[in-house]
Amino acid sequence: MELRRDPITQSWVIQEEGEGPWPQVAGCPLCPGQEALTPRTLYVHPYGTAEWQVRVIPHPRPIYRIEGDAQRRGEGLYDKMRSLGAHEIVIEHRNHNLPLSQQSDEHVAQVLRACTSRVADLKRDRRFRYVTLFRNQGTAAGQDLEHPHSQITATPFIPRRVGYELRSAQRYYELKERCLVCDILKQELMQQVRTVEWDDQFVAFCPFASRVPYETWVLPSQHHCAFEEDVVQWERQVHCARFLRSILRRLESVASSYHLVLHTAPNVNAKFERSGNWRTITEDYHWHFEILPVITTKSKSYSLKEVYYNSLAPETAAEELRKAGVEAAVKG
Amino acid sequence: MELRRDPITQSWVIQEEGEGPWPQVAGCPLCPGQEALTPRTLYVHPYGTAEWQVRVIPHPRPIYRIEGDAQRRGEGLYDKMRSLGAHEIVIEHRNHNLPLSQQSDEHVAQVLRACTSRVADLKRDRRFRYVTLFRNQGTAAGQDLEHPHSQITATPFIPRRVGYELRSAQRYYELKERCLVCDILKQELMQQVRTVEWDDQFVAFCPFASRVPYETWVLPSQHHCAFEEDVVQWERQVHCARFLRSILRRLESVASSYHLVLHTAPNVNAKFERSGNWRTITEDYHWHFEILPVITTKSKSYSLKEVYYNSLAPETAAEELRKAGVEAAVKG
Repeated sequence: MELRRDPITQSWVIQEEGEGPWPQVAGCPLCPGQEALTPRTLYVHPYGTAEWQVRVIPHPRPIYRIEGDAQRRGEGLYDKMRSLGAHEIVIEHRNHNLPLSQQSDEHVAQVLRACTSRVADLKRDRRFRYVTLFRNQGTAAGQDLEHPHSQITATPFIPRRVGYELRSAQRYYELKERCLVCDILKQELMQQVRTVEWDDQFVAFCPFASRVPYETWVLPSQHHCAFEEDVVQWERQVHCARFLRSILRRLESVASSYHLVLHTAPNVNAKFERSGNWRTITEDYHWHFEILPVITTKSKSYSLKEVYYNSLAPETAAEELRKAGVEAAVKG
Repeated sequence: MELRRDPITQSWVIQEEGEGPWPQVAGCPLCPGQEALTPRTLYVHPYGTAEWQVRVIPHPRPIYRIEGDAQRRGEGLYDKMRSLGAHEIVIEHRNHNLPLSQQSDEHVAQVLRACTSRVADLKRDRRFRYVTLFRNQGTAAGQDLEHPHSQITATPFIPRRVGYELRSAQRYYELKERCLVCDILKQELMQQVRTVEWDDQFVAFCPFASRVPYETWVLPSQHHCAFEEDVVQWERQVHCARFLRSILRRLESVASSYHLVLHTAPNVNAKFERSGNWRTITEDYHWHFEILPVITTKSKSYSLKEVYYNSLAPETAAEELRKAGVEAAVKG
């Protein structure tokens, strides 16, 4: 397994020659009673009991490996390196059949606590440039284990889209001395056409140039660059959990599969990749969750590959999701 | 229908509120005898006969519209414009059931002639910044009409990936005074591990950082920036047709669906988007076809969204495709 850089776009591609097999087990490897299969525990709640509620383990079939260094090197014109990094699984609940959106606010807050703890820990490893958290829900989104779980990765590079975000955020800040995302939030709250839900701490809206139908972002309404430093107090974690569950329930009423990806500030050593300095990232970058539903409709027919094509206006998506909330609340 | 710019990545998204219906017809709208359904003909071969062999028409359900101007404007922080452009269908053969790869070299050369003619014509329209040709083969690649056809689009913006290519090509040229793609070709022909097929005019290889299994590029071995100016002589068109057919037959032995996309130099008025001048594009840009097979394997399980993950090494892909050619030739 290695990382190769596209000489055209300068982005990194994970290149694997065949995939390792999943450990052969009877039943779900993430269920209680199967802990012997995945002996290393990186985080557990409650601490010191076999009756865990949330558990973080190394991925049994990792795409990044934690040992050694990146060994970045050339091959003629090309660049490659080892797939150094971390790949972890956050087991969100003991119960195999209880999806995240159906768990209690307090339980989801414990999941968020596990995530902030692991992300903060990995960010201290100076070999890594970026740490993120993502969740593939449903087979169409590539969920390969039924048991409710998220994944955490740490990589020796900054992913393409995050790199663009950092650059845009920095340029806007240089021009305006304000955060781009804070200004976007202000406009969304004023226009009230793409907003889905908001309160005094969080906002959810369908972005103006949504890439897929029902794309939704969840952000803190007060500026903060890093999820793992912002969502640390218990009350804040419970609030964030309640807000996120509400958004997921809305989305699940229109799509059974989605990708959820955390965008948080890169690791401190990544500052050297930017022309500015570290201080500006804390001021110009705004952490958020991007949720991309996987909906296969006829609209896929225009697969232009180079241009995103979205068959549903975000204004309409937001309107549907605002209504979906009411129905979900009534049903629940 | 409008175009909206993502404030983060600066790329344009086509935003449509519902899709127009296909014209209700009995049978295939692209077959001979149905010409009354699509009366406007933009190109036909042979000229002046009802017994056409290749025909280009406006797309009956276009995503870009040719009338008027772009009306680029702001909405607070955001940017949008009309989906100005052209969207055409190249009907590749009278025969509904004869895929491109099974047509004769001379017939495919006529298809290429139709394409170069239409691309060159659209490039003269100064409202457009980029013209391209693409082909969705198979339902998994979004082919919505069974009849063999390609599509041509002209857009008032340069697509994201092409923009990165132009920038990389320009930077490399500034550094080396050589074309990046020419240097890549030289290395590929020397290493002989990712090359699929080559002769005195064209080269096909699986790129070093392939985004999907069996990704294949087809390029002229002599430097040229623009397909529509390079493949104009009949002998060259026949040669290109024969080469392309051979590659498609190899790919069809491993994947039933693929996207084929032409990357050619942008329109002349797009030069103002670059810090350099027009002259450098002709020297630093190298036209090519990118072919992206659509293969849904278990490897999709790692949908990291922000990072490409490819489960098959391009060296292995190229080896298989080189062998596939032998078998296809034997079968044919």
